Amino acid sequence: MKSAIATVSVSGTLKEKLAAIARAGFDGIEIFEQDFIADAGSPRDIGTMIRDHGLEILLFQPFRDFEGLVGDQRRKAFDRARYKFETMRKLGADLMLVCSSLHPNALGGIDRAAQDFAELGELAATFGMRVGYEALAWGRHVNDHRDAWEIVRRADHPNIGLILDSFHTLARKIDPDSIRRIPRDKIFFVQLADAPQISMDLFYWSRHFRNMPGEGDLRVQDFMRAVAATGYDGTVSLEIFNDQFRGAQPEGIARDGYRALHVLMDDVRRSEPDVLVDIPPMPARTRVGGVEFVEFATRAEEAGQLAGMLRSMGFSHLGDHVSKAVTLWQQGDIRLILNQETTGFASSAYNMHGTTICDVGLRVDDAGATTERARALGATPFNQSVGPGEMDIPAIRSVGGSVMHFIDDTSDLADVWSVEFRRPVVAATPDAGLSRIDHLAETMHYEDMLSWALFHTSIFDMSRSEIVDVVDPDGLVRSVAMKSANGAVRITLNGADTHRTLVGNFLADSFGGAIQHVAFATGDIFSTARRMRDSGFDPLVLTENYYGDLRARFSLEPGRLDEMKSLNILYDETAQGAFYQFYSRPFASGLFFEIVQRVGAYDGYGAPNAPFRTAAQKQLLRPKGMPQR
Amino acid sequence: MKSAIATVSVSGTLKEKLAAIARAGFDGIEIFEQDFIADAGSPRDIGTMIRDHGLEILLFQPFRDFEGLVGDQRRKAFDRARYKFETMRKLGADLMLVCSSLHPNALGGIDRAAQDFAELGELAATFGMRVGYEALAWGRHVNDHRDAWEIVRRADHPNIGLILDSFHTLARKIDPDSIRRIPRDKIFFVQLADAPQISMDLFYWSRHFRNMPGEGDLRVQDFMRAVAATGYDGTVSLEIFNDQFRGAQPEGIARDGYRALHVLMDDVRRSEPDVLVDIPPMPARTRVGGVEFVEFATRAEEAGQLAGMLRSMGFSHLGDHVSKAVTLWQQGDIRLILNQETTGFASSAYNMHGTTICDVGLRVDDAGATTERARALGATPFNQSVGPGEMDIPAIRSVGGSVMHFIDDTSDLADVWSVEFRRPVVAATPDAGLSRIDHLAETMHYEDMLSWALFHTSIFDMSRSEIVDVVDPDGLVRSVAMKSANGAVRITLNGADTHRTLVGNFLADSFGGAIQHVAFATGDIFSTARRMRDSGFDPLVLTENYYGDLRARFSLEPGRLDEMKSLNILYDETAQGAFYQFYSRPFASGLFFEIVQRVGAYDGYGAPNAPFRTAAQKQLLRPKGMPQR
Repeated sequence: MKSAIATVSVSGTLKEKLAAIARAGFDGIEIFEQDFIADAGSPRDIGTMIRDHGLEILLFQPFRDFEGLVGDQRRKAFDRARYKFETMRKLGADLMLVCSSLHPNALGGIDRAAQDFAELGELAATFGMRVGYEALAWGRHVNDHRDAWEIVRRADHPNIGLILDSFHTLARKIDPDSIRRIPRDKIFFVQLADAPQISMDLFYWSRHFRNMPGEGDLRVQDFMRAVAATGYDGTVSLEIFNDQFRGAQPEGIARDGYRALHVLMDDVRRSEPDVLVDIPPMPARTRVGGVEFVEFATRAEEAGQLAGMLRSMGFSHLGDHVSKAVTLWQQGDIRLILNQETTGFASSAYNMHGTTICDVGLRVDDAGATTERARALGATPFNQSVGPGEMDIPAIRSVGGSVMHFIDDTSDLADVWSVEFRRPVVAATPDAGLSRIDHLAETMHYEDMLSWALFHTSIFDMSRSEIVDVVDPDGLVRSVAMKSANGAVRITLNGADTHRTLVGNFLADSFGGAIQHVAFATGDIFSTARRMRDSGFDPLVLTENYYGDLRARFSLEPGRLDEMKSLNILYDETAQGAFYQFYSRPFASGLFFEIVQRVGAYDGYGAPNAPFRTAAQKQLLRPKGMPQR
Repeated sequence: MKSAIATVSVSGTLKEKLAAIARAGFDGIEIFEQDFIADAGSPRDIGTMIRDHGLEILLFQPFRDFEGLVGDQRRKAFDRARYKFETMRKLGADLMLVCSSLHPNALGGIDRAAQDFAELGELAATFGMRVGYEALAWGRHVNDHRDAWEIVRRADHPNIGLILDSFHTLARKIDPDSIRRIPRDKIFFVQLADAPQISMDLFYWSRHFRNMPGEGDLRVQDFMRAVAATGYDGTVSLEIFNDQFRGAQPEGIARDGYRALHVLMDDVRRSEPDVLVDIPPMPARTRVGGVEFVEFATRAEEAGQLAGMLRSMGFSHLGDHVSKAVTLWQQGDIRLILNQETTGFASSAYNMHGTTICDVGLRVDDAGATTERARALGATPFNQSVGPGEMDIPAIRSVGGSVMHFIDDTSDLADVWSVEFRRPVVAATPDAGLSRIDHLAETMHYEDMLSWALFHTSIFDMSRSEIVDVVDPDGLVRSVAMKSANGAVRITLNGADTHRTLVGNFLADSFGGAIQHVAFATGDIFSTARRMRDSGFDPLVLTENYYGDLRARFSLEPGRLDEMKSLNILYDETAQGAFYQFYSRPFASGLFFEIVQRVGAYDGYGAPNAPFRTAAQKQLLRPKGMPQR
């Protein structure tokens, strides 16, 4: 089974595309005719350049408006085909895609089209070429792969076959299992694309909204399982275009494409064990059991402020690193690390961002397997030299260049805290009732959000929510939540459209994505809020109008509402349960903390409150370029 | 008739929104509840702040999920309404919008809803308030203004009326003339929004794609004519949200809104002379007869290069300004001005952008009326001190801070060339057959494209084409063409999504929009291209593959095709006619020239060729940040 990606999926000049595609690990490409025409090289030179990148030309596309014409227009269509075959011979390509016709004069008729393709097959054979026919979802007469297959069957020519595209089938809600009855040798090529489930004009949807398998809502896995069930072992290729990809860096798109394709095929293999799926093996997704630690890079005055804030939240300073300027803070199952080193990774993170979350440790079932899977999917491994008395814990690069460590029970890694840290001689802080990390909120440009969602869902046993729009006073923020199967780890991704949003503002300061806030869980938010208030915690203050609105919206007891107002606790309610939350003020470059309590089966993150807490946070941020007060 | 805009249409904090809305000239606002809740002021303080901006609160919105409930949920809905009325009293608002319910338990039933509203009317009356009911296009039971009207009619309460929204009516393709039978006094409020004609889920379309009247494809004018025909003279308000507006500057949105609303009402008044439309008068659109001149700000070495390029294109140096370092170049009806002054407007344009087009003169029927209309629609007048022997020509600011002058035949302005310029002692250049300016191509960020399209179509007698997607190797460029009624003036707007596109690249260098190229028309492009080649003109070179593809696509004579290839002429063909074009190489900061010939009724701009000429142009641009060769 060969992996490919269409050159139209990747931005840049043809040479830039090829370099990115080769580096990502694909076997070959679909060459999009426009890319070929725009290149100054001769067809022969372009073919050589592609092969010099270690890539095969697995498809030449598209050839449009071929079938169903008569007279001069039919003759002209065959002339065009002949010229394309000549070009393909020079390029070194032997499979051409013909998509179903949109021509206003195309007559339709299954037998007429079959006759056209039988003749085209003869012409193709004289060049040693093959032709694949694909039903466009908006084709004039043929817009269903079952009709395209009937035409190919009746054309009955060895050089004529079918090309399947998941978007065209799934967008029209055609049952992908109808593929299972097509003979494998008549499927010449398979294209994959996903898309978010928005009902709209099919052509507009396809042009602007396609995305990588697993990034959208279509049943691409069912489609691919049906294809695999036929015994098909030819090329599986990504033909994807959307407005964001067109403007993105070629390397990122190619890497995401490879990751999406590899993980899809791996999932198909695991769900259809009796079907051969010939791709390199990798370990299965590992169960994620919780957040083991969160590490802050900080320094000097900011380190003191952060430690003070942690104390006001009920965290105790329980450890000093054996050899480094690193302290450990704990409460319940939460471990926070403050790293004040002036060399090494945390130090460079501090130098770039100011106080920032530079490292997250995840508890997993098998740290080695997790790292191996991540590497197989193109994640960047992270290694730092290990000092005396320190352990070498597997790690990869995560959002915004931060690090993600993996810790399991199978080794003595679980003992890292007693091995690397000594108990300091300071009194413990009174506990505030925080028990665990509810979620980490990562912030990024919207263009990168799908990419980081794919990162999490492909490596870990995590699923993805729908994308929610959050209106910031200065722009749109889109938010998606990932959750481990048991709910122990939750990560939200917030993608900002403009730099004027709170999220975008934070990004402008921090060069790429980052974790902007950590939410801690409590079993009794009122008690926690009171204890924190008594320890000097400075909450984000909500408006009177917010509580007036709460009163109108929900049936809350007046006493309870007054208490919420005095403690600045926000509230949300669904049929599943209730949600309480309050926030710290933003620290340094926009980092902040949240305290939450989930009641019943509430599974969200208080999205209806987001506009109000965002507005309150923005009030506190000094306008850019203004003198500080 | 009062003009208003919803606070949700404008970005920023409530205070920023109010400042922008007041400055644009609106009478009042619809206050969006979220904006109110997010503000730290008390309802009374917020009301005062709004009135201090000189604005009235004409509507409080939205109140959701009111009608069709029973039992506790119905009681709770009335409790919510009571709280809102109390809040509105403090704010100083007396009209509330209730949108049709999406509540899963709403029962439906016209009479049940009418009964709910009759009771709500009683409650509203005790507060001195009125309530307007609006049918959301995706309402659960009520999604058509005719049904909402039937409910209001049966509620039969003086404090209950109807709210109409052009989007909700037109998106469902409901005939707007059905409004003509509604009594004017039962229409409490009118909201206007346009949208591009893309078939998609109504809610998604409304949330992400609404735009200003005239910026989209809906029949907003027909809608407003029907409203005006009822005798309605209440508030007309803009309720508009889309992804771009949310991230844009509040001033721009408010100014565009005022312009769109004013021009719509003016058009309604002119098309329905028997209906009273009570808005400030302004002159009608003036006929645009042609481009009188294009002025370049340039200097030193670049001025010499530009003059050389003009000579190679067959332009003759025919005038020197009486008092300034300004020269006049002519060919056919085309006048180009090279301004090398080191003070004044052109000089500052040069200092900001390098060689750039800083001024365009349009021939209009009435220059004074055009300027007056432009000013009434919020355009910025431009005045420069007039030197001895110079004329004071009316002008406004145009795209990217450039200037647009208006010249008519009614004054002696037409003689400006003979008055201000002297013939120099240089030989004329041999003519290359260029006869007139075919079009000017303006370049901008995509977010600003609708705004500049509205600028042109609202001030001039120009119409707008559909928006076309052009794929640049590094991103999407959207293009829209404006054409005067007689076709004498054509202006294309190209909006870039990312700074990596050719257009975006140009913008990064030129701080905002600008004219990136001028296209000259010839009656015989082959003769022109040969004459220019002989004069040393350096064309943009297309690839061999491009001509191979032309051969396959069109039935061109081989000899003609060879000639096109040798002269680097591009070709396009439609059922209406044919189009030939060739380009100069990009000059200085990306400015370039195009030569075109239209055959038959070809009305486009060669969009199918854009990817290939863009790729060729990008080849010539040095990568940013790389050392120059």
